[in-house]
Amino acid sequence: MNHYQPSLPDVQFILGQVLHAPERIAALRPYREVDAALIDQILDEASKFIAEQIAPLNRVGDEVGAQWRDGAVTMPSGFRDAYQSFWQSGWASLSTATQDGGQGLPAVLDSVLYEWLSAANHGWTMAPGLLHGAYECIKHHASDALKTQYLSKVGTGEWLTTMCLTEPHAGSDLGLASTKAVPQADGAYLISGTKIFISGGEHDLSDNIVHLVLARLPDAPAGPKGLSLFLVPKFYPDGEKESWVRSAVYCERIEEKMGIHASPTCVMRFDETRAWLVGEAGRGLNAMFVMMNAARLHVALQGVGLLDAAWQKAEAYSHDRRQMRAPRPKDAPRGAGAGAADLIIEHPAMRRILDTQRAWIDGARVLAYETGLALDEAKHHPDAAQRDAAQRWCALITPILKAACTEQGFHGASECLQVLGGHGYVREWGIEQNVRDARIAMIYEGTNEIQAIDLLMRKVVIDGGAALSAMLATLRQHLSTSQPHEAQVLSLFDELMATTQICLDTAQRNDGQVQLSWIAGDYLRLASLALWAWAWTRIEAAQGSDTPRWQAPAQALRAWVLPEFVMRSGIIRTQLGH
Amino acid sequence: MNHYQPSLPDVQFILGQVLHAPERIAALRPYREVDAALIDQILDEASKFIAEQIAPLNRVGDEVGAQWRDGAVTMPSGFRDAYQSFWQSGWASLSTATQDGGQGLPAVLDSVLYEWLSAANHGWTMAPGLLHGAYECIKHHASDALKTQYLSKVGTGEWLTTMCLTEPHAGSDLGLASTKAVPQADGAYLISGTKIFISGGEHDLSDNIVHLVLARLPDAPAGPKGLSLFLVPKFYPDGEKESWVRSAVYCERIEEKMGIHASPTCVMRFDETRAWLVGEAGRGLNAMFVMMNAARLHVALQGVGLLDAAWQKAEAYSHDRRQMRAPRPKDAPRGAGAGAADLIIEHPAMRRILDTQRAWIDGARVLAYETGLALDEAKHHPDAAQRDAAQRWCALITPILKAACTEQGFHGASECLQVLGGHGYVREWGIEQNVRDARIAMIYEGTNEIQAIDLLMRKVVIDGGAALSAMLATLRQHLSTSQPHEAQVLSLFDELMATTQICLDTAQRNDGQVQLSWIAGDYLRLASLALWAWAWTRIEAAQGSDTPRWQAPAQALRAWVLPEFVMRSGIIRTQLGH
Repeated sequence: MNHYQPSLPDVQFILGQVLHAPERIAALRPYREVDAALIDQILDEASKFIAEQIAPLNRVGDEVGAQWRDGAVTMPSGFRDAYQSFWQSGWASLSTATQDGGQGLPAVLDSVLYEWLSAANHGWTMAPGLLHGAYECIKHHASDALKTQYLSKVGTGEWLTTMCLTEPHAGSDLGLASTKAVPQADGAYLISGTKIFISGGEHDLSDNIVHLVLARLPDAPAGPKGLSLFLVPKFYPDGEKESWVRSAVYCERIEEKMGIHASPTCVMRFDETRAWLVGEAGRGLNAMFVMMNAARLHVALQGVGLLDAAWQKAEAYSHDRRQMRAPRPKDAPRGAGAGAADLIIEHPAMRRILDTQRAWIDGARVLAYETGLALDEAKHHPDAAQRDAAQRWCALITPILKAACTEQGFHGASECLQVLGGHGYVREWGIEQNVRDARIAMIYEGTNEIQAIDLLMRKVVIDGGAALSAMLATLRQHLSTSQPHEAQVLSLFDELMATTQICLDTAQRNDGQVQLSWIAGDYLRLASLALWAWAWTRIEAAQGSDTPRWQAPAQALRAWVLPEFVMRSGIIRTQLGH
Repeated sequence: MNHYQPSLPDVQFILGQVLHAPERIAALRPYREVDAALIDQILDEASKFIAEQIAPLNRVGDEVGAQWRDGAVTMPSGFRDAYQSFWQSGWASLSTATQDGGQGLPAVLDSVLYEWLSAANHGWTMAPGLLHGAYECIKHHASDALKTQYLSKVGTGEWLTTMCLTEPHAGSDLGLASTKAVPQADGAYLISGTKIFISGGEHDLSDNIVHLVLARLPDAPAGPKGLSLFLVPKFYPDGEKESWVRSAVYCERIEEKMGIHASPTCVMRFDETRAWLVGEAGRGLNAMFVMMNAARLHVALQGVGLLDAAWQKAEAYSHDRRQMRAPRPKDAPRGAGAGAADLIIEHPAMRRILDTQRAWIDGARVLAYETGLALDEAKHHPDAAQRDAAQRWCALITPILKAACTEQGFHGASECLQVLGGHGYVREWGIEQNVRDARIAMIYEGTNEIQAIDLLMRKVVIDGGAALSAMLATLRQHLSTSQPHEAQVLSLFDELMATTQICLDTAQRNDGQVQLSWIAGDYLRLASLALWAWAWTRIEAAQGSDTPRWQAPAQALRAWVLPEFVMRSGIIRTQLGH
């Protein structure tokens, strides 16, 4: 088995040549000191840390997994040491503000870091994966007293965090949640209820765990607007005795799962547990959404990372093993000295898989890192219009990336497994673990079907397509009709907008919402394909992209991926009666 | 977790109303006594046996799996008893000739039996799955002496069998195999070498195991033509002492795999093992191909079965659980008494998944059972032209079914998992096991990429498309241009033939073989979609199909599945320059 090796030159090329990230970062006030050399140095160190300390733990994480016993969860050998090293080296706080103990670096570097971490060891990465969202949530919504106690502990990653949302029978639909919070005389609350599917609800990676819990006050209305957010530490200081009190929050069991065995998926019971309100009562979902948007980009990056991990294995295998003779032109007979079989990479069907998945990965990186940059620009760009544009990009692109990258993470990793044949189905090369691990990303943080509804109804129909139209207008500025591939993207954008108009018209109809629900998934794919095509024109416009490394996936995208665009557009038009 | 329940009425409808199987079977000489009542009785008993004895062992098969220790393999608790009951009840010998100890029933019943068995417990079913092929191989190629010893033991299933083909570095390409066979003075051979990926190479299900092994004689040429087939029993009788001798064939280890944990995938070492030649020297692949074609239909049925198993779970879940409010027409507001959430089945995206997968399953059953019937008709039809037509159908359809059904078995089961959300990713409902188990079927018995090449190059290009054209002409006879859905199928057939002509023209070009290798997978999908569309017109032509049970999947096929046809045709035309 080969461990994942972060692909530093590829990422440097996309950040530097394609997205001009160093220049854009340096234009933002907090990052004036961040130059290309510093970025390179950070990524270089990150790649070494991951390759040496995180990737080698991937197999034990899968085979041994998290172990539950009497309410305690023991992580696989090496996991705690790796986590302690991770946060103490400052990786957990890469983009945390310096006043909260962090490095104060741009979010786009976090994107690269977490893509690589997920590729190297998805199960392990689940633990710190929620940190930054919890940090933002506490920073923006918690009281000063809570911040004093928890903000830097979470910001540095010394204490890990959870999001306690789901309950039995309340999965995608948080409004059904029934966990109760009863106010106490001293301003705290007592929480009672059971939460399920809580990633990292209990473990031995960090000395404390900070739970963010959705619960309902006694007088709260039914539905999502009755939910408030609470902070429940596993241990909290007893002010009088200067000692620590163990909260009445218990891990009742962990789930057996298809993959990510190293991430304990916990059933958590709150039994009149002391808790503190975060943000306003009844505004719990609002506070939580800060976490969820960041989490969705993060999940998209898991898909990209796991696909790249599977691709690395398939690529290596295809250059190492021989199977059968590859087809050749009739006038190019094999020489007498040729062996009995050709390398697997020489077989067109295998080459097609590898080039196609490469096209998905590289395009996803352009879009995801652009989104990382947009997160930075939305906060810090000196020009308000640019901040708005960045914000618009993030809102529109998040559901697209979450769904498309995780879909491809699973299906593309399975395609890569096919390159190894029977050797892919057995554990030997570790690629079947990538496929099993990748499957969860299509479900959590909002299923991909929910992302599609989110995009079509809440991001496009809601403003009559104005934000989408504005975003595409920005992208069009760099495209020329005289360049054939760019002209193709322009026509994809035209068709995307024409299809959008059909959706907008449909929304007016009596059964509009029903009709759009049937084709929301097709619409998301349509938008995805247009964006991947755009991303590849950006790659091709970059200096140094005229090599087989970048040309082969570009061709694969156009030959094998983009034909789906017409199919999706046809499905939508037919279904909506156009 | 719900165990799989064979869907007797659905299968009876397809066999009886759609395919008129009882009438067609009764027209074949050996099956004159087989009427609809007997078929129903057999299927009824099969469904009960499977539901009661095989399906309940699926979970333990996955969780405990086959266990290797010191060369011996112990199967999970209950597996041996179930197997002994299976063969002693005559299920293993359903279609074995009566003179070989079998029931002498038509092959099409075996198709249904093995589809259900795979759905109920893929891992367990791997063991008897190779029996019938080995029986046919011994019957048609072994010497009378070998037949006396082994034919009825294999025909009844008392002794299980293996196919020992693959070696390290010789997977899809058997010509690379290097296992040696040295002739002995008494007419036997001594075999030496290592075989990998041997399903059921060692276990405790049956008292003996009969290995069929590809090996190379000392003077044999390199490549596939140098391979001969040998029979190696785990135990063979020592004529003089009337006792049994343990052969020098050893299971060195079993593989850890993504799924089918209950099927021991063995590394088998042959160490000057006594063996007997089956068929002519140098004609080993030829003898083996008898097994491989039967095995490919069998693997297709695994895909169908596992998809149906996953579908059953998703369907049940979607009618049991509620999540969020489903969209409604504006003039149909929800009543005040309605609950806070709707059933999952009421959400269009979930309904779409369930109806679409149902369309794949039912269409696959029509095509696979038709192939089972064709196997019977190819042997026993009184009319030579009908025998030829049946043979042609089998040759063309086998690679299509193998690839399309296993592709859908995996991807469709994954879609069904999505209906359960997080509950699908955990073990609870058992659907993630279906997905893991299903993945292997895309690889073994010839990867799906090899099926695509087989179809395009060796079944279509080889005779200038004549067999395909003849097969489609037969199917056209029952289609009318005045019936819109049948007219659609006729136009799909037209486009399939037009695309075929482009492929035939391409084959003449200097780089024709290379060009066709790139799009062989698209061509197989094109043919698959045309055939599924045809199958559904057969269902709709059957009495009793005008119910939502059959109408909803028919609509789903046309809305969501068939649009891929134009995409594939477009890819082929673009790639081949048309």
